[in-house]
Amino acid sequence: MSSSQAIEALREAFTRLPGIGPKSAQRMAYHLLERDRNAAQSIADALQHALDTIKHCRRCNNLSETELCSLCASPKRKHGLLCVVETPADLESIEMAGSYNGCYFVLMGAISPLDGIGPDNLGVDRLLKVIDEFDIEEIIIATNLTAEGETTAEFLTELLSGRDITLSRIARGVPVGGELEYIDRNTVARAINDRQTLNKP
Amino acid sequence: MSSSQAIEALREAFTRLPGIGPKSAQRMAYHLLERDRNAAQSIADALQHALDTIKHCRRCNNLSETELCSLCASPKRKHGLLCVVETPADLESIEMAGSYNGCYFVLMGAISPLDGIGPDNLGVDRLLKVIDEFDIEEIIIATNLTAEGETTAEFLTELLSGRDITLSRIARGVPVGGELEYIDRNTVARAINDRQTLNKP
Repeated sequence: MSSSQAIEALREAFTRLPGIGPKSAQRMAYHLLERDRNAAQSIADALQHALDTIKHCRRCNNLSETELCSLCASPKRKHGLLCVVETPADLESIEMAGSYNGCYFVLMGAISPLDGIGPDNLGVDRLLKVIDEFDIEEIIIATNLTAEGETTAEFLTELLSGRDITLSRIARGVPVGGELEYIDRNTVARAINDRQTLNKP
Repeated sequence: MSSSQAIEALREAFTRLPGIGPKSAQRMAYHLLERDRNAAQSIADALQHALDTIKHCRRCNNLSETELCSLCASPKRKHGLLCVVETPADLESIEMAGSYNGCYFVLMGAISPLDGIGPDNLGVDRLLKVIDEFDIEEIIIATNLTAEGETTAEFLTELLSGRDITLSRIARGVPVGGELEYIDRNTVARAINDRQTLNKP
C-alpha cells in the first residue's frame, strides 16, 4: 500500500458512513485532499459542531440543539396530538408533506429482535412520561410499514390501548401516482380492504 | 424545515462529497448523530488530521505526509523509470497490480479544455524538473484511455519526444476476462491492430 497513514485513516473513517464501501471512501478521500480542501474543512467543522451541540429534545426525543426543539416550543402546533415516528428522517418527511399540525415523538428506531432491539431500547419510557405530562388526547402511530415498524405499532397499540387516548395508524394503500399493475399484492389487498366510502347512501 | 441549523449545516457539508446528493447527505447526517457518534468523531478527526498533514511529495507530486513519499524514498524502486498517471487513485491501481517497480509522477488531473484545465494547470513544469534532476531513462505514459487522458498523453509525447528518453504508452486492448462479444468496437479494433506476436517464424 503506497498511500500515507493519514489517507488510510480517512478512507477507513468514510467507510463508516451508511452506504459507503471502500471504493467510494477512497474516491471521497482523494477528491477532498486533491481538489476540495475547503469542503474537507467544512465537513470536519460541521461534524464537530453537530457533535458538540446536538442533543435530544426533552419532549419529542428528536435531535435538537435546544432543550425543547422548535416544533415542541411552537404555539402553533396542537400539543395534545402526538405522532409517533421511528426516526428524525420520518418526522422530516411528514413535515414536508405539510398536512400535520400536531407534535411528534421520535422512537429512534423500531423493535427488531434480529438486531437485538426490544421495547427497552426505544424511548418508550419517555413516551409514557410525555403522554402523562402533556395531557395527550390522540396518538397517530406512524412507524414504517415494514415488519419492524408493524411490530412496533402492535406493541404500542397494546401498551396504550387501556388509556383514554384515541389511537390511530397511518393509512395503508396504493401510493399517490401508483399504478395497480406495478404495486405488490399485499398493498393492493390492503387498499381494497381499507377502501374509503365516498358517499352515504 | 424542522431540523436544527447544525444538522442543516452538516447535511449541506456532506453534499460536497463526490456522488452524494441531498437525500444521501441527510441519511448520513442522521445516521451519525442518531446511531454512531463515535464514527462521526472518527471522521471529523481523520479529516482534520489529513488536512493538517497531507502535502505533495517533492518528487512524484503524489499526496504524502513526508517531503518524499515512501515510494520515492524506497531504494527498491528503479529511480530512472517513471510512470506518469493522472491521479493518486490511478497510482494506487498500478501498485495493486504489483508488476511495476519504477517510480511515478502524478499529474493531479488531465488536460480538459471543457473544464478549463490546460497543461499549465497540471504539474508539467515539475515533471520536467524531475526528469532533469533524477536522470530519467524511460517514461511510461499511463494516463487514462479517455478523451482527456489521450489528449494529455499526446501532449506529453510531443513535449518529451525531443529528449533522449524512451517513451511508451500503456497497452490498449480487451481486458483480462473480457469477452469480445461484449467489448466496444474501438477496443476490439485496437486489440487487433496492437496484436502481440507469439512466435518468431
